[in-house]
Amino acid sequence: MAATTLKGQPLDRPVLDSMLRRRMFYTPSFEIYGGVAGLYDYGPPGCALLANVTDIWRKHFVLEEDMLEVDCTALTPAEVLKTSGHVDKFADWMCKDPKNGEILRADHFVEEVLEARLKGDKEARGVKIEEKEEDPKKKKRKVKATTAVKLDDAVVKEYEEVLAKIDNYNGEELGQLIKKYELKNPNTGVEPSPPVAFNLMFQTSIGPSSNAPGYLRPETAQGQFLNFAKLLEFNQHQMPFASASIGKSFRNEISPRAGLLRVREFLMAEIEHYVDPEGGKKHARFDEVKDVELVLLNRHTQLAGQTHVEKVSIGKAVADGTVDNETLGYFLARIQLFLEKIGVDQSKLRFRQHMANEMAHYAADCWDAELLTSYGWVECVGCADRSAYDLTVHAKKTGAPLVVRQRLEKPISVEEWQIELDKKKFGPHFKKDGKTVEAAIEALPQEKREVLAKELESTGKIIIDVEGVGNGKVEVSKDLIVIERRTRVENTREFTPNVIEPSFGLGRILYALIEHNYWTRGSEGGDEARGVLSFPPPVAPTKVLLVPLSSHESFKPLLKHMSNKLRTLGVSSRVDDSSASIGKRYSRNDELGTPLGITIDFQSVKDSTYTLRDRDSTKQVRADEDKILAAIKSLVEGTKVWADIEKELPAFEGQDAEVPIR
Amino acid sequence: MAATTLKGQPLDRPVLDSMLRRRMFYTPSFEIYGGVAGLYDYGPPGCALLANVTDIWRKHFVLEEDMLEVDCTALTPAEVLKTSGHVDKFADWMCKDPKNGEILRADHFVEEVLEARLKGDKEARGVKIEEKEEDPKKKKRKVKATTAVKLDDAVVKEYEEVLAKIDNYNGEELGQLIKKYELKNPNTGVEPSPPVAFNLMFQTSIGPSSNAPGYLRPETAQGQFLNFAKLLEFNQHQMPFASASIGKSFRNEISPRAGLLRVREFLMAEIEHYVDPEGGKKHARFDEVKDVELVLLNRHTQLAGQTHVEKVSIGKAVADGTVDNETLGYFLARIQLFLEKIGVDQSKLRFRQHMANEMAHYAADCWDAELLTSYGWVECVGCADRSAYDLTVHAKKTGAPLVVRQRLEKPISVEEWQIELDKKKFGPHFKKDGKTVEAAIEALPQEKREVLAKELESTGKIIIDVEGVGNGKVEVSKDLIVIERRTRVENTREFTPNVIEPSFGLGRILYALIEHNYWTRGSEGGDEARGVLSFPPPVAPTKVLLVPLSSHESFKPLLKHMSNKLRTLGVSSRVDDSSASIGKRYSRNDELGTPLGITIDFQSVKDSTYTLRDRDSTKQVRADEDKILAAIKSLVEGTKVWADIEKELPAFEGQDAEVPIR
Repeated sequence: MAATTLKGQPLDRPVLDSMLRRRMFYTPSFEIYGGVAGLYDYGPPGCALLANVTDIWRKHFVLEEDMLEVDCTALTPAEVLKTSGHVDKFADWMCKDPKNGEILRADHFVEEVLEARLKGDKEARGVKIEEKEEDPKKKKRKVKATTAVKLDDAVVKEYEEVLAKIDNYNGEELGQLIKKYELKNPNTGVEPSPPVAFNLMFQTSIGPSSNAPGYLRPETAQGQFLNFAKLLEFNQHQMPFASASIGKSFRNEISPRAGLLRVREFLMAEIEHYVDPEGGKKHARFDEVKDVELVLLNRHTQLAGQTHVEKVSIGKAVADGTVDNETLGYFLARIQLFLEKIGVDQSKLRFRQHMANEMAHYAADCWDAELLTSYGWVECVGCADRSAYDLTVHAKKTGAPLVVRQRLEKPISVEEWQIELDKKKFGPHFKKDGKTVEAAIEALPQEKREVLAKELESTGKIIIDVEGVGNGKVEVSKDLIVIERRTRVENTREFTPNVIEPSFGLGRILYALIEHNYWTRGSEGGDEARGVLSFPPPVAPTKVLLVPLSSHESFKPLLKHMSNKLRTLGVSSRVDDSSASIGKRYSRNDELGTPLGITIDFQSVKDSTYTLRDRDSTKQVRADEDKILAAIKSLVEGTKVWADIEKELPAFEGQDAEVPIR
Repeated sequence: MAATTLKGQPLDRPVLDSMLRRRMFYTPSFEIYGGVAGLYDYGPPGCALLANVTDIWRKHFVLEEDMLEVDCTALTPAEVLKTSGHVDKFADWMCKDPKNGEILRADHFVEEVLEARLKGDKEARGVKIEEKEEDPKKKKRKVKATTAVKLDDAVVKEYEEVLAKIDNYNGEELGQLIKKYELKNPNTGVEPSPPVAFNLMFQTSIGPSSNAPGYLRPETAQGQFLNFAKLLEFNQHQMPFASASIGKSFRNEISPRAGLLRVREFLMAEIEHYVDPEGGKKHARFDEVKDVELVLLNRHTQLAGQTHVEKVSIGKAVADGTVDNETLGYFLARIQLFLEKIGVDQSKLRFRQHMANEMAHYAADCWDAELLTSYGWVECVGCADRSAYDLTVHAKKTGAPLVVRQRLEKPISVEEWQIELDKKKFGPHFKKDGKTVEAAIEALPQEKREVLAKELESTGKIIIDVEGVGNGKVEVSKDLIVIERRTRVENTREFTPNVIEPSFGLGRILYALIEHNYWTRGSEGGDEARGVLSFPPPVAPTKVLLVPLSSHESFKPLLKHMSNKLRTLGVSSRVDDSSASIGKRYSRNDELGTPLGITIDFQSVKDSTYTLRDRDSTKQVRADEDKILAAIKSLVEGTKVWADIEKELPAFEGQDAEVPIR
């Protein structure tokens, strides 16, 4: 599927890229030093765009639902990420070319070579080659052209099967594939070294001694989990609740490409919504979103090799089990509403369910919001039900009680095997080992207690395993211990909450947003070279451009006056008093995505009337200051659209006509 | 000087600390794993407070002056920080105790032991020991108590001289002091190892190969400098202009203490204002601030051992040369206005000029805005004139033209020695060395050219040094070269701008802001244990608390209604519908700094009237919904104060009286 602009034109990415660089939306970091792959700086418009998207995110999620926002450190001690599993598992497989030292991501390498062979086979068979959708996460490396070599039918089938499962191979298996198919680096003709795991976290050392290894966090989530108990307390022990965090995360990609889509330092916004695992994970506000319709590409559809599905209401999807539970469904709908609010093209949005083998083993369900760009479908938001995994592993490691305790309305009775020790005799009998033995006894599970109760009754003693005491076997006689079936009344219930985690890659969303709002005037009979970014006004980096007709002194007080007025209204504006023609100045701001322009001319000096220009239609109206300011405010706040303003205020045909409209 | 609360009470820091932790303003990171010194997470109120301070900063500086905001990466290749001088010089001296492995910051250690000896001397002499102002940057280490030993008068004098100069010693000198005075670690009685330099940057490796060392940035400045040429272009080549950046920076402190004041990861806001070095660094808007009065503690006053100075207008301070130039003065005044706006106590603010030896060698002048806290005077904002240093070193290293080119209104004539080569003969003569020789010739400075012109005239040839060609000496005969004194007309002027850099430590400002706004109800005859944070409403984490009288069902729709109304007004609110008494709920929110409270009672259900409570006076008024909302909006926007509201709306004496007011 070829990428298109907002107006359906074919999207010419190099042209867009060059415009984004020229207007400094973002730029390779350290470029005067030769740059570093995967690192980008945001220039003024990119920075403002990102700030506006983040601000809307905060209002849409954090403020709307009273989430508890926290700001945790990026520096993280190794122990925390060992517990979470990142130290052992957050890795990709990499190979090295022994000849030129090139480092290759193993799965991408296998894929690249097999695909090249299949392409060569098609050429040899004279089959027309379809342009495949690009996957931004994979290969963009320049390699030598393929050669047309026909393969056996069986080989073609085998290659295709390997490619279908490429995400599922481990390092050893990838190494076997390289050997088996004699895969050579096309750039050198040499077989790369066997794959080794490369951890994707940036390592460092915290403090002056070298024995405190740390990492830069690869996600904000862990910091939120570690604060769970304090946040629950802050929330006055009320459930459910959510924490949220906006901050930078870091991943040391092996070979980052594809611009903002795969970078080593990026802004994330993550929510950890804690929910009671019992009662079906209902959500109190689910009714508010149940009619929102989503494109849901579920597992079965994917397995059937299909990608097209009709929209379905989230209410129905939860009811029929497509989406696991109400809370997960609530957030999928809320994610879609957020993306719609910032100006994402809804026809280029889908939710894709993770395949069973894609998900972490603890996850109950996971959906990605994917946005269609010229790089193909790009995962921009993940929404996973992480079950109780994270809180459980950190609690187990640290002993911290990361649980919720709730008073039961009706106390419940529990029948269980209870153990009672005769403390007066027990201590003196075991002396220094007393505490160790006692701890071992108290840790005995119910099944074991039942067995031991019988043993005690029949033999008058029990023998239990206690590590570190004597030979590891300890005898306890019946004068020291009683094991009995008793009834205990519970007044509180204790549980580890499950976590639903919507996780946003704001840089990726920003890039997709740019593509979705880009078009050129050529689509309306104008100049093909004139790019426009039609961001919705609340998202646009700058809302108003102030343009004096010329550098005449009499315009200066009006410029200052209007700047101040707009600032008081909370509307960001910029002045362009350069000597370029008005048309050129507006054209520059079309590329910056500025939705509105005010022209100050000699008439303005006389009667305080101004023209207001709409970026998308290039049409203008003229009115007095108050009416112009009121129009701007309503447009920026989204209470009116340009068509409303055109009806209310008289049109203006400027002396400095821009482009012929049709 | 003892620290005081907003109401002049003695400030009890442990009580405040415990309140801040209880209310989760901030909390040690990774606490359930034992914590990591110098790393803190912001909880919900701290996070909101920081976001509000940052937002006001952005409006006050970036939007007010059309600064170009950028967002650069924290990951930085080593080469960049080598050029900037950080790899070689951004270090502290550290010693190690060979007995217990304790790591000591060398200057702090010398200071600590000498001060302990002086204290022991005073005790032995029976002199009353004054409580010295604490310096938050130094010692807070628990060490064994001092012993009372009398010293010779000469020794006392020597120690005092060393302490006065403690910031000026290098590692070797600190090592000599340790030897000379036989300084032992009080915790072990052992002399520590000689000081070694410890670089304060966190090191890592970027990418999969290990030969790309990088650091986490210790400041945001370098990323801004590297984008200078692009930003100048973005600003359509207009000077002066400023870039700005808000982001995390990282410093691997040897032994961080003093809470938020010395941490390893912190939020900075930095401005790089580029100014033409010629013409006295005037500022176009200086007149707007010239009457702002500041406490300026200049070098001479400090050398004279004084700390008290009268306020002086910045206009006068620049005119009499106390502050180097208008641009620097403009920013000092703007910094003070910002601090005032967010609620810093103006009586606890001073600007301290750096001593000559404190400044970087390239700096022309530097002032710190210091805020008085219970840790003493704390540097919270630095404002330095960095001259052309940064742009110059990066340009020299990379060859990038980090300069401004301006068309001269009147062209100027320059007489100079020009060199002309006969290209047709020159290339064939030198063959492969042609380009190298040519480059060497073109690089010849004017003085050298003059000498060579005479040599050429008298001998018919010149001999120049060309590294890498032959034996390094190259002969050029007069048929290949002409050297002549000629006149060149210059139409453009090229210069490297100077940089004025206001640099804000937002975490430190936040902590000082908390201390400056803290007090307890005891000061007004109430409960000493009831803390209040009287943040100005625009800064307060949450603006309004919504309190239903009880959990009665009839209050719920009103709560939801008022929440929505406030959200539409852009006013953040929280509901506390817990079962605690109204007084307790308000008390909790006094500690959170929430300035306003709305009580919803049975009267509200009947007639839509509500009571509005003022945090600072605990007084209440009652009116209908619209009036209450209008009052809230004006208070939050700062257009009215509580006294105005009390005049406009009828007072309300609640059934749930809180504290006896006087």
